[in-house]
Amino acid sequence: MTVRVGVIGAGWIGKEHIQRLTHAVTGARVTAVTDIDAARAEEAAAPVGARVLPDGAAVIAADDVDAVLVTSWGPTHAEHVLAAVAAGKPVFCEKPLATTAEDCLRIVEAEQAHGRRLVQVGFMRRYDSGYRQLKQVLGSGRIGEPLIVHCAHRNPSVPESYTSAMAALDTAVHEVDVLRWLLDDEIVSTQVVTPRSTGKRFAHLKDPQIMLFETAKGVRIDLEVFVNCQYGYDIQCEVVAEEGLVRLPDPATVGVRTAARHETEVLTDWVGRFREAFDTEFREWIASLAAGAAPTGPSAWDGYAATVITAATVEALESGRVVATDLKPRPAFYGGAA
Amino acid sequence: MTVRVGVIGAGWIGKEHIQRLTHAVTGARVTAVTDIDAARAEEAAAPVGARVLPDGAAVIAADDVDAVLVTSWGPTHAEHVLAAVAAGKPVFCEKPLATTAEDCLRIVEAEQAHGRRLVQVGFMRRYDSGYRQLKQVLGSGRIGEPLIVHCAHRNPSVPESYTSAMAALDTAVHEVDVLRWLLDDEIVSTQVVTPRSTGKRFAHLKDPQIMLFETAKGVRIDLEVFVNCQYGYDIQCEVVAEEGLVRLPDPATVGVRTAARHETEVLTDWVGRFREAFDTEFREWIASLAAGAAPTGPSAWDGYAATVITAATVEALESGRVVATDLKPRPAFYGGAA
Amino acid sequence: MTVRVGVIGAGWIGKEHIQRLTHAVTGARVTAVTDIDAARAEEAAAPVGARVLPDGAAVIAADDVDAVLVTSWGPTHAEHVLAAVAAGKPVFCEKPLATTAEDCLRIVEAEQAHGRRLVQVGFMRRYDSGYRQLKQVLGSGRIGEPLIVHCAHRNPSVPESYTSAMAALDTAVHEVDVLRWLLDDEIVSTQVVTPRSTGKRFAHLKDPQIMLFETAKGVRIDLEVFVNCQYGYDIQCEVVAEEGLVRLPDPATVGVRTAARHETEVLTDWVGRFREAFDTEFREWIASLAAGAAPTGPSAWDGYAATVITAATVEALESGRVVATDLKPRPAFYGGAA
Amino acid sequence: MTVRVGVIGAGWIGKEHIQRLTHAVTGARVTAVTDIDAARAEEAAAPVGARVLPDGAAVIAADDVDAVLVTSWGPTHAEHVLAAVAAGKPVFCEKPLATTAEDCLRIVEAEQAHGRRLVQVGFMRRYDSGYRQLKQVLGSGRIGEPLIVHCAHRNPSVPESYTSAMAALDTAVHEVDVLRWLLDDEIVSTQVVTPRSTGKRFAHLKDPQIMLFETAKGVRIDLEVFVNCQYGYDIQCEVVAEEGLVRLPDPATVGVRTAARHETEVLTDWVGRFREAFDTEFREWIASLAAGAAPTGPSAWDGYAATVITAATVEALESGRVVATDLKPRPAFYGGAA
Repeated sequence: MTVRVGVIGAGWIGKEHIQRLTHAVTGARVTAVTDIDAARAEEAAAPVGARVLPDGAAVIAADDVDAVLVTSWGPTHAEHVLAAVAAGKPVFCEKPLATTAEDCLRIVEAEQAHGRRLVQVGFMRRYDSGYRQLKQVLGSGRIGEPLIVHCAHRNPSVPESYTSAMAALDTAVHEVDVLRWLLDDEIVSTQVVTPRSTGKRFAHLKDPQIMLFETAKGVRIDLEVFVNCQYGYDIQCEVVAEEGLVRLPDPATVGVRTAARHETEVLTDWVGRFREAFDTEFREWIASLAAGAAPTGPSAWDGYAATVITAATVEALESGRVVATDLKPRPAFYGGAA
Repeated sequence: MTVRVGVIGAGWIGKEHIQRLTHAVTGARVTAVTDIDAARAEEAAAPVGARVLPDGAAVIAADDVDAVLVTSWGPTHAEHVLAAVAAGKPVFCEKPLATTAEDCLRIVEAEQAHGRRLVQVGFMRRYDSGYRQLKQVLGSGRIGEPLIVHCAHRNPSVPESYTSAMAALDTAVHEVDVLRWLLDDEIVSTQVVTPRSTGKRFAHLKDPQIMLFETAKGVRIDLEVFVNCQYGYDIQCEVVAEEGLVRLPDPATVGVRTAARHETEVLTDWVGRFREAFDTEFREWIASLAAGAAPTGPSAWDGYAATVITAATVEALESGRVVATDLKPRPAFYGGAA
Repeated sequence: MTVRVGVIGAGWIGKEHIQRLTHAVTGARVTAVTDIDAARAEEAAAPVGARVLPDGAAVIAADDVDAVLVTSWGPTHAEHVLAAVAAGKPVFCEKPLATTAEDCLRIVEAEQAHGRRLVQVGFMRRYDSGYRQLKQVLGSGRIGEPLIVHCAHRNPSVPESYTSAMAALDTAVHEVDVLRWLLDDEIVSTQVVTPRSTGKRFAHLKDPQIMLFETAKGVRIDLEVFVNCQYGYDIQCEVVAEEGLVRLPDPATVGVRTAARHETEVLTDWVGRFREAFDTEFREWIASLAAGAAPTGPSAWDGYAATVITAATVEALESGRVVATDLKPRPAFYGGAA
Repeated sequence: MTVRVGVIGAGWIGKEHIQRLTHAVTGARVTAVTDIDAARAEEAAAPVGARVLPDGAAVIAADDVDAVLVTSWGPTHAEHVLAAVAAGKPVFCEKPLATTAEDCLRIVEAEQAHGRRLVQVGFMRRYDSGYRQLKQVLGSGRIGEPLIVHCAHRNPSVPESYTSAMAALDTAVHEVDVLRWLLDDEIVSTQVVTPRSTGKRFAHLKDPQIMLFETAKGVRIDLEVFVNCQYGYDIQCEVVAEEGLVRLPDPATVGVRTAARHETEVLTDWVGRFREAFDTEFREWIASLAAGAAPTGPSAWDGYAATVITAATVEALESGRVVATDLKPRPAFYGGAA
């Protein structure tokens, strides 16, 4: 039973996912594509034999669309997700679920009214084999209860359009989601410490930043976000627990010895780092739909929490204060703790 | 354009590949299955909607079979591959291509007579990302010409039915193939050195063994085969070249610190170690067929060379002497050096 | 020319250093020892052929004492160091230089009045080959200006007498000193974040703690102090700079593969971790004295700064606030930036 | 009680050891030095306050010489060691003990006639902390009985005067000694396999070479000797045993991430690699003499075995055959198995 997917938004990530659904995921077919730029929609649709539709509403309504993929511009996410929920169709929305807490809550309420999970948010780290091993070790009880998490999220460089607020909204948001899931815990406060900024990039930007999160259970997280680190794309995560620690591995690369050095490669882009995670994310999403089951990935509630926590972090950056996240109580509908 | 595959042999590896072609590879469909045990064929065919056919000939002849996968008992490989070639159908044959040099040559000749490559042999290491990185480093010229390769192939344990000859025929055969490809060079002689055998397993078995290969260009390879090493499934490969060395990475696993130890996991089976390589192997095979191109993976000639070299290694083990491999001259049809 | 050393305080560390000066350091001889417990002094003095003197004043005054080593109880350090300076004799004082900022300043002033450095404080990390490599990399300019330092200081466990304040005063004090030296920069503010405490040890103790330091140049340091981490004695330090990072190595230990694990040992005590650093510290101290030169190790000013910064950190822990360290201006007498 | 050492031979290594005995080892003093070049002797003796004597005999006979250090040209070792034994004085001889098996046996017999061990041979690897950890793991029984040892001994380059025979005599001799000690086993046969030689150095030299040793207990050793490897000085040793393996660590060096690489330094000379081992070797030698005990380091018998085994390896290289070492039976006087 092939799942027929309609895609809203044919920019870079939309095209990537269309290719992925076609060539890397079995059991799926992209049947319809839309974009505000019709030529771009055509360019994405043609190679996979999909048709172009005028807008998101048409994609959602189409008979040959079983599930919707939202990869449009962030501010439009809420509208499309709400429409898909209203139509009772499963919808995968790239992050963010919505740009405001209010819109996120609207989706959460609509989904609860529908009575069954329809929404999955595109936080792919939960599908990375390293993070999954981390969670397995924590779950095994071998090292006891977690107390501290040390993280780093480093990119070689960002364009001038990247702002200080985006360090939380666009970059740290991945750690926010994956740590909530990893720890099965909620983030209750946030603080930002700003080292002197690197001189290697645009003067307007606070970079690096150190974000400090506290969870409901009292775990403390320090996260270095450094988006102009020059040397590579480097994701680090170490969980310190009562009887030991566990650390995310670097990607496996050959070791070379030459010229008085032992060296391994450091990746320079996130596409290579998380390609497998993206593939797994979509394979599991399609598999759950094909099986008629609700999605098990990041939920609308997770999307809401990420939006609230990252907004609070921007406030913490701008105010210099510790900011409480003041999340609403988690509905039983979403299960779990975080 | 979906490639329809007929499968001859529905044992463990046959079933694995049927699942792989169905769930991990896009663009393929298993349409027909046969096995000497009809119930086993049925069990493999039913879940993927394939029909059961009475024998290999029927599978090869079937109209809805575009390509043939041979995963039957080794001694039957030659017959099925020759029949597929005679029918002009692409055929993927699990190793060995054939159990005798004569049968391998018969296939090589039939394929040449056909005028175009049809045969691919199932040596999956060429598809492992670590070996591909090794080859990329060697090809870059960064470390100069290779001089020595140190390898180890270790399994935790083997059943009592495993014989001393199988160390070459079934185990070292993977290194024989991948090193010929990695070095683009041919193995011209072989020798076996036998340490005292481990006391942890059956007394009849010479285990471990150290195999010493020499290539046409004078590279020396030492390969430790240790199939009852107890501790894990561990594949090591280090190429020493004129200006440096390059080493295969261990799989990426989380690091744990607890109880006065820093530890990473060592895998215990080859399925986990090479799952990605198997997937890539079949994805690339199907993609080449879908594109109407000849396969680019291990050829019938590679299958012949592996059979000859491993047989010479058994002779070296039994005689205690250095044995020349005396391979036939490589036909221009197969390109390359090795 | 043998340097004759008089030792004030024959407790555990005093005995260690007496053995060190006798058996691991050439060019030194311990000639006199005192302790409030005369029997303990005798026990330390006898094996190395030193005589026992009634008190610190007698040691400092002795004709056969060229240099003084103060390893007595912390609150008595200032008195002995001031007496040694008054006598114009070089004095090595185990940390802390003094327990109050006032006493430290008294020593600093006395030394300046004397006109030449006499005092060295026992911060041994500056002599560890790993930290020296870190400093060499930073000084080389290869990775640009430092922006962030991530550190961890973990002990397997501490006795019930260890208090929350000691995390700064006794434990973090080593990082405070070595980071000031490594960065050639001063710490200007301090904050403490407290994760939930481990359940594996005494309830009265805030453990772990995360200390956040800011330097004059704007470098931000996060230091995890976890003194009941159970698994080992583990010292980590990573400096993130504008074009790369550099990380302290773990001690070199053999790798073992067995039982599906690759493992290396984690040390469980600081004596093994820093034995070489202690030896080097005393070798360099004795060598400078033998050469008639002033000591080049941690100065009285460094001792003052460490006492002030760790006291501010205790205040930060207790108040929950960011605390400025408000160090006096650094006298030109002490050179350097930090 | 200071041990007074007389030194025969003031070349590079002689001077190194004179400095070591003076500045890095407590309890020793160099009192007399000789060399065939009197000016060189003077240059070595003066800075440490030793006097120059006309020849080895004078050094051995001197009243203020308690122990003799032989660091002269290899072919003269036997004469000096025999003279020291005749005088009943402890003697430390740099490798080789003697250049012929006959001379080695003469020393062995003289020492037995004396009735007590006097001779120690300068194989410093037994004092390296990595090899000691290896031996500790093997002795613990954690990984069972050893079956195979994989080794590499790589130097960046050698001068034109280095011959193919020196790969065994001067280079592999260190592995020969340390492996006999590590395994507590004797080497009974030797073979040499020659890959094509590197083009990066002198054409006369067979480099690299792979030496294959067999022990009395059936352990097989493969040792890559590559003395023009360009990239560094690199010593590797991995022991594969029945239930696991153990591997020598690389020296601890800081990890640097920059320019898309993670790198650690590879040393480029053996002086840095084994400085600590040399220091420990002399500290333990002097400590045993000061205690009036016989030396516990490599014995005259070990010197004999090393000379015989490396000579057999040269014969194996030149003949292309497996060569039996045909060592004499080990006298009970020397204890142990190897």
